[in-house]
Amino acid sequence: MKRVVTLGEIMLRLSTPGYNRFVQSQDFDVNYGGGEANVCVSLANYGLDARFVTKVPKHEIGQSAVNALRRFGVDTDYISRGGDRLGIYFLETGASQRASKVIYDRAHSAIAEAVPEDFNWEEIFDGADWFHFTGITPALSEKAAKVTLEACKAAKKFGVTVSVDLNYRKKLWTPEEAGKVMETLMEYVDVCIGNEEDAELVFGISAEDTDITKGEINHNAYENVAKQLIERFNFKYVASTLRESYSASDNGWSALLYDGEKSWLSKKYDLRIVDRVGGGDSFASGLIYALVTGMKGQEAVEYAVAASALKHTIPGDFNLASREEVMTLMEGDGSGRVQR
Amino acid sequence: MKRVVTLGEIMLRLSTPGYNRFVQSQDFDVNYGGGEANVCVSLANYGLDARFVTKVPKHEIGQSAVNALRRFGVDTDYISRGGDRLGIYFLETGASQRASKVIYDRAHSAIAEAVPEDFNWEEIFDGADWFHFTGITPALSEKAAKVTLEACKAAKKFGVTVSVDLNYRKKLWTPEEAGKVMETLMEYVDVCIGNEEDAELVFGISAEDTDITKGEINHNAYENVAKQLIERFNFKYVASTLRESYSASDNGWSALLYDGEKSWLSKKYDLRIVDRVGGGDSFASGLIYALVTGMKGQEAVEYAVAASALKHTIPGDFNLASREEVMTLMEGDGSGRVQR
Amino acid sequence: MKRVVTLGEIMLRLSTPGYNRFVQSQDFDVNYGGGEANVCVSLANYGLDARFVTKVPKHEIGQSAVNALRRFGVDTDYISRGGDRLGIYFLETGASQRASKVIYDRAHSAIAEAVPEDFNWEEIFDGADWFHFTGITPALSEKAAKVTLEACKAAKKFGVTVSVDLNYRKKLWTPEEAGKVMETLMEYVDVCIGNEEDAELVFGISAEDTDITKGEINHNAYENVAKQLIERFNFKYVASTLRESYSASDNGWSALLYDGEKSWLSKKYDLRIVDRVGGGDSFASGLIYALVTGMKGQEAVEYAVAASALKHTIPGDFNLASREEVMTLMEGDGSGRVQR
Amino acid sequence: MKRVVTLGEIMLRLSTPGYNRFVQSQDFDVNYGGGEANVCVSLANYGLDARFVTKVPKHEIGQSAVNALRRFGVDTDYISRGGDRLGIYFLETGASQRASKVIYDRAHSAIAEAVPEDFNWEEIFDGADWFHFTGITPALSEKAAKVTLEACKAAKKFGVTVSVDLNYRKKLWTPEEAGKVMETLMEYVDVCIGNEEDAELVFGISAEDTDITKGEINHNAYENVAKQLIERFNFKYVASTLRESYSASDNGWSALLYDGEKSWLSKKYDLRIVDRVGGGDSFASGLIYALVTGMKGQEAVEYAVAASALKHTIPGDFNLASREEVMTLMEGDGSGRVQR
Amino acid sequence: MKRVVTLGEIMLRLSTPGYNRFVQSQDFDVNYGGGEANVCVSLANYGLDARFVTKVPKHEIGQSAVNALRRFGVDTDYISRGGDRLGIYFLETGASQRASKVIYDRAHSAIAEAVPEDFNWEEIFDGADWFHFTGITPALSEKAAKVTLEACKAAKKFGVTVSVDLNYRKKLWTPEEAGKVMETLMEYVDVCIGNEEDAELVFGISAEDTDITKGEINHNAYENVAKQLIERFNFKYVASTLRESYSASDNGWSALLYDGEKSWLSKKYDLRIVDRVGGGDSFASGLIYALVTGMKGQEAVEYAVAASALKHTIPGDFNLASREEVMTLMEGDGSGRVQR
Amino acid sequence: MKRVVTLGEIMLRLSTPGYNRFVQSQDFDVNYGGGEANVCVSLANYGLDARFVTKVPKHEIGQSAVNALRRFGVDTDYISRGGDRLGIYFLETGASQRASKVIYDRAHSAIAEAVPEDFNWEEIFDGADWFHFTGITPALSEKAAKVTLEACKAAKKFGVTVSVDLNYRKKLWTPEEAGKVMETLMEYVDVCIGNEEDAELVFGISAEDTDITKGEINHNAYENVAKQLIERFNFKYVASTLRESYSASDNGWSALLYDGEKSWLSKKYDLRIVDRVGGGDSFASGLIYALVTGMKGQEAVEYAVAASALKHTIPGDFNLASREEVMTLMEGDGSGRVQR
Repeated sequence: MKRVVTLGEIMLRLSTPGYNRFVQSQDFDVNYGGGEANVCVSLANYGLDARFVTKVPKHEIGQSAVNALRRFGVDTDYISRGGDRLGIYFLETGASQRASKVIYDRAHSAIAEAVPEDFNWEEIFDGADWFHFTGITPALSEKAAKVTLEACKAAKKFGVTVSVDLNYRKKLWTPEEAGKVMETLMEYVDVCIGNEEDAELVFGISAEDTDITKGEINHNAYENVAKQLIERFNFKYVASTLRESYSASDNGWSALLYDGEKSWLSKKYDLRIVDRVGGGDSFASGLIYALVTGMKGQEAVEYAVAASALKHTIPGDFNLASREEVMTLMEGDGSGRVQR
Repeated sequence: MKRVVTLGEIMLRLSTPGYNRFVQSQDFDVNYGGGEANVCVSLANYGLDARFVTKVPKHEIGQSAVNALRRFGVDTDYISRGGDRLGIYFLETGASQRASKVIYDRAHSAIAEAVPEDFNWEEIFDGADWFHFTGITPALSEKAAKVTLEACKAAKKFGVTVSVDLNYRKKLWTPEEAGKVMETLMEYVDVCIGNEEDAELVFGISAEDTDITKGEINHNAYENVAKQLIERFNFKYVASTLRESYSASDNGWSALLYDGEKSWLSKKYDLRIVDRVGGGDSFASGLIYALVTGMKGQEAVEYAVAASALKHTIPGDFNLASREEVMTLMEGDGSGRVQR
Repeated sequence: MKRVVTLGEIMLRLSTPGYNRFVQSQDFDVNYGGGEANVCVSLANYGLDARFVTKVPKHEIGQSAVNALRRFGVDTDYISRGGDRLGIYFLETGASQRASKVIYDRAHSAIAEAVPEDFNWEEIFDGADWFHFTGITPALSEKAAKVTLEACKAAKKFGVTVSVDLNYRKKLWTPEEAGKVMETLMEYVDVCIGNEEDAELVFGISAEDTDITKGEINHNAYENVAKQLIERFNFKYVASTLRESYSASDNGWSALLYDGEKSWLSKKYDLRIVDRVGGGDSFASGLIYALVTGMKGQEAVEYAVAASALKHTIPGDFNLASREEVMTLMEGDGSGRVQR
Repeated sequence: MKRVVTLGEIMLRLSTPGYNRFVQSQDFDVNYGGGEANVCVSLANYGLDARFVTKVPKHEIGQSAVNALRRFGVDTDYISRGGDRLGIYFLETGASQRASKVIYDRAHSAIAEAVPEDFNWEEIFDGADWFHFTGITPALSEKAAKVTLEACKAAKKFGVTVSVDLNYRKKLWTPEEAGKVMETLMEYVDVCIGNEEDAELVFGISAEDTDITKGEINHNAYENVAKQLIERFNFKYVASTLRESYSASDNGWSALLYDGEKSWLSKKYDLRIVDRVGGGDSFASGLIYALVTGMKGQEAVEYAVAASALKHTIPGDFNLASREEVMTLMEGDGSGRVQR
Repeated sequence: MKRVVTLGEIMLRLSTPGYNRFVQSQDFDVNYGGGEANVCVSLANYGLDARFVTKVPKHEIGQSAVNALRRFGVDTDYISRGGDRLGIYFLETGASQRASKVIYDRAHSAIAEAVPEDFNWEEIFDGADWFHFTGITPALSEKAAKVTLEACKAAKKFGVTVSVDLNYRKKLWTPEEAGKVMETLMEYVDVCIGNEEDAELVFGISAEDTDITKGEINHNAYENVAKQLIERFNFKYVASTLRESYSASDNGWSALLYDGEKSWLSKKYDLRIVDRVGGGDSFASGLIYALVTGMKGQEAVEYAVAASALKHTIPGDFNLASREEVMTLMEGDGSGRVQR
Repeated sequence: MKRVVTLGEIMLRLSTPGYNRFVQSQDFDVNYGGGEANVCVSLANYGLDARFVTKVPKHEIGQSAVNALRRFGVDTDYISRGGDRLGIYFLETGASQRASKVIYDRAHSAIAEAVPEDFNWEEIFDGADWFHFTGITPALSEKAAKVTLEACKAAKKFGVTVSVDLNYRKKLWTPEEAGKVMETLMEYVDVCIGNEEDAELVFGISAEDTDITKGEINHNAYENVAKQLIERFNFKYVASTLRESYSASDNGWSALLYDGEKSWLSKKYDLRIVDRVGGGDSFASGLIYALVTGMKGQEAVEYAVAASALKHTIPGDFNLASREEVMTLMEGDGSGRVQR
């Protein structure tokens, strides 16, 4: 059983039930989630040994975040306790032409104020095969950036494969700040997930002039971006999801994986969206699972995109789809017939 | 800040949760709504000074209706208290081929039995820029028709612009009764909202023979109806929404505005419907907002139709969309991407 | 008023609210349902005298199943009391590419362990016009198969028309077992409902080689299967629904009726699915209602398919659509406009 | 199996969940209830043949009231359909020093506007042993009083025992009106349930001067009132509950039965109240059950008061306690130990 | 209509439904509350003009707090907008021996970081009769203490009566800090509410040696504390509630008012607790209402304690009891009989 | 950190919300629980290493039971997967004079049909300090009794302290069967928990004639029973809770611990009951925690009884109280004051 470690923030998610707006809601659904935590839950659901590293306050809200992870089998033994608060985000689910809305209240969280002494990387990476983080973690604070760097160094030291999901968040830092910090982290990274916008904002990389017909441009343009990323950072793989947002209710969903020489474009799914938060994370966990268990090229990207297609139908941040369900879908059965 | 006054009935709305049918429901969601009340809430959300005039009983159910309006900033100072009951409507939300169903239980309501002495129009219209009512209010009872007439006369006396939404309701009166009463009110009206069916049933106005190709017929036919309405009643504007009911879940939605010389047809939205009750009212409030704040022609109709597109995604009668959200949509972003 | 009798199992249905997965749900919606029970409720809603025969335990869960039927007017006077447990099924509602999932926990139920002495068929069929059962009932146990056979014999003896819905369930028996038992029951059957898969698995009947263009193949192939069924079992009618599963959220829905000489293909509905469990049963009850009240051919199949289209929009196993609603839809109004 | 017929109004009850106040509630729990309907449900739960007679509108809300009764086995075959609306009452459940609050919205209901032609008493009383009504029914309207009188006459004609629960409601009529109408009905009554306040307000009967020690005064005073009632109206039995309202959460609960010669005082229960609406009706149904099945004196009043003690723990108007549960409690087990 | 102004923090309150613990809850009930906000809502419910002053962020969660106040008629015109976040508190409701638990997450809130420029006290106190604040507000931050001082000075300048509820909160500051800041504020205060613990921790005032029998000691001791408070700060009135915590479910509740010469002890209520958060605030609002409308001595303390007894039965921070309900209780009817 | 192992059944618990009866409930709250599982969760909450051993089916309902345990930190690594079903119990919560009701549907569960090969006791008891089981486990089936015996033998072999909670369940076996099986298990037991009824039904041990005054009889009688148990089975400790069932809402709660020489009677708590299922298990886990961490005599029994007093206020089977909360209560603070 492969062991994957992730580092990041887990937040309390407070969402309005149904399609209620914030201003009309008298209760909130309670979930817990965050990029790297979501990846861990999904990997644990696939049967891997998934270890999540963060810091949460000692009170019951912090404990509830830990419990949410334990419930799905995530190893929480290396979660540090202390600090003042758990980050929070408020979510209002959109429909049709009305977009979903997220209000962050995450400043001053325990993980944003964590220090290197909170974590014993030697123990954490013991037996680990893979380390994953997102661009959100170093963006939380200078302290968090420092912790991320320590983690990356330790991962490399212990021979662990490292993946990143660029995930640029404009409310957390500027492109300049992001570029500077992320640059220093990329040398430890083997697999990079990030879309065109991330690549441009964080690294100033955009598709070079390409003379191709419209309609195919996205794939080729993205392949070109991926090529530049690999040339600059020497990644083994670059991957990106390709979301077509028809409306808050309906999206097209596919992905592209590139290894510097060859690219694999996945099948495209037409999604009726139940909950799209965590969609990108479910792609990351799908890809990590695929690669760490030995899938390659087309198979890997198909697994990842099928996994994340399923996530869009599941309430909460976590992808609660099983390996078997992902396999069934990637093998072609998306008919939705009742499983009796 | 412009001040808009509306007069009408606010009802207790009892709706089954989810897609439950009446006969299987063990609880009802509680909302309050009614044509003119809905317009007020939406205008208050856009930042206007919106004053709603009605009469509700002194008990807590009446108070709850007032509270529902205050919550969103509506001025309720001129709501009269007394009478026996608050009107009620029961709502079952349909899906796909099953239509939504409304059961009215509104007879004998406080507003239906209100008398002119319940309202001091001089105070009510103090500082007002606009007055709006619908064809439902005079249909409630002879008393209510009398109150409506008093309000129209007062509005004109105080130089207030008047709009009407024809809204013919067959359960409340016959076309003959409607025609007779509405005729007397139209002389005070500047802006008329009403679809072809309203125009025909209330005023006997239908599209004159037109030799045009199918597919465009609706717009031209409606423009012809609008022309006749203006010729007869000297309105400044006539407007109508153009709903294409594919099913209870999916509608096409656009609108047309006409000023006697020129017509403006809006963009069409494909709606996934969450709650379509109050859709027409949200068009009215969008149009009033647009016109009272100085938008014209295409801009005005685009604001109104975008506003009402958003309403279809919001539970309850009220349009809880903000001015900024409407502007974002009318400027073209209906992609539903998560707003972080 | 026609009297229809059905025999079968009614189960406690425990379903996760919304689109929650089993592993994340902290409450279950409680419904009761089962093929023949669902047929009875629907027929009672149409105004027929519908009598449901089963056996339930004496405790409150058993009583709740009876109450669920009484609530909608089903005659429960011949439900036997005793045995250890009520069968249960767990339901997780899917969306988009994620299929709905059913977990059965129905072994050892009261009806599975019922014996002929539990039922007085002479009294049960007194005044009856129609008897309906599904292939699920004899599959429950040898005892249940014996009870079903007794019922069929009695129905014939009292001159009652008999219908069956083949409904092969692989978790209950093998094709061999099914074929053997169902063969003996078919001699009592007048109207057979069953799709191609049922026909093949239970009776080894598949479409004979047909040289026709793709796209029309389903109807012709199914007509061929129906023809073979009639030739072998001398049915008066064979019918089947034709479900096109685009996804768990969207289906195409139509049906075909065949009388050995002529076939009638219904209109096709594009369904947005709220709850598809009981969809087949609602077709059966629609067809029984149509035939027992004298509809024929195209009218009968249109009634049945419109009825079951509506069912897909109603939570729970039961079709709570009225005769008037079915008639409105089959006459062409599927626009979903609000009924005020 | 004894058959009991009751006549009265069934209303839609809309109550706030938990201890929410009306002005803060965004949903209402839906129940259906009314004095005589509550009696029928309880009798059906005890195993009697209970027939409820009323008039409800033809729409789904009316149907839901019928379904609520059918669910618990009440015979609804003689419920007349028509009229404009179902009566409604709003309920806010109190606690501690805050009283529960009821807002009635029952004017113009179908039963209040029913006429004698709506009911065929010959059929209704066929095979009946007992007829029960409350003072609420004739108070609804002159028409309803007329219908009640017709029912009483028919009951006597068919040799049916008649009981009344005086239930004076000050919002429906004055003491003078009540006295006049009730006087004419009492000649048909055999068993009268009513407390001191009812006796005084409706019939001007109050306890004659009695020289007894405090603490026992209530029982003696009530016995004196009962004596006067019997002398005036020739009842066979007079009964009353004796509620001690410590607070909205805690009550003392006992009862007294008197036959003109002897009185039986029940055991007293200390109640923790879950839902006290319908408490009096559950006493009435307990007493009717006891008397119609042959219990006498102490046994009868103990059954009735134990039954109604249980009702106070059950949400909704209906007493869903079984005969066995009542027997267990009246035989002394009120320990509340878990029944496994 | 008297105008009362209060200044303080309004927080988002997230509470577990029923008696669920934090670690098992999958949804939170949403309320908004805070000491001075609670006072305003209650005063608006009594019919006064209640103006709440605070600062909330511009986003929808901030707006929801404003809406919660508007819903009950509070004047929110002087609420400043800006800052990063709305303070939050998590609440788990206890029962029996298990205490309710509050987790604060209020640091860095908009009001804690407000500055004097956010408020125009001249406008705010225009027409005001009374100003109220609690010891929580200056404890939020140095900035908030400064704002409070400005408010007190302005209140005095405009001749407004000032009341304080000491409300020492150990998580916000030390007794030393509290004493220092509160000392400077007391010179502006006319009416002081605070219990023995507050007096000791904040001002080092404890009951002087008193030779009295046990059982009466609390009242006398508290009177002695009150006397010292008045001697030191020249208050017109000192008041305190006297809570006897038998368990989380049951409390004794009374209060004492003292004017330097005479003390009035209220009636004691035995409370079954639904929600005790805001209990102290409801006493404060009751006392302010009583004093500002001219009640004196015994009447004033009885109004205040009856008001707060009712609050303990109402979910949420706000006291939603009306003036009439308080009057009914203080006049002796705490029987909890259903109000029909 | 001490390691405790328990063996038993975990069931799906389906309970009606609030005080609803089974026959009126349209949803069930979902919890998972069972004697030994409850003990494990509580011990994990206290900070011990708690390992639960059972067998659950491979489907999602089985997985949900595992997740419920993992959520609270229980070690589920030795739960065997397979079998047909998870046992179920239905729970209706009583109030006042109405008892809670449990309907079991647990026959044929995976653990009832487990075989010794499902468990590797050598690994399971590795590092264990304590083993606990209840009389329910061997009562499930002969197979389960065999597995229990294997576990006891292995525990002794590995030097693990063994405790049993007698927990006689009349629906599972007769006193004769129980006595025979339990007799063989007692030789491995060190600590026995069981009340008088258990002792009498299972082992035929009842209090010998004792000449003592009423009121103290329970303690002395129970001490006598405990003495006999120790003489017969050589237990180190015998303990029992002493429940006084005033009603379903209110209980007295204390306990007695006896070591063959000395007995310790705990403080008595007056409980307002939220959920009493699992009350006995929470006493067992409290006692195990106390003894395994070195508490003795009075301290041990006070910890156990305080722990279980808290459990009665917590929804679900599990005791979610922390060690700190138990300590606070046992040290005397049961005032229920809000913890801020």
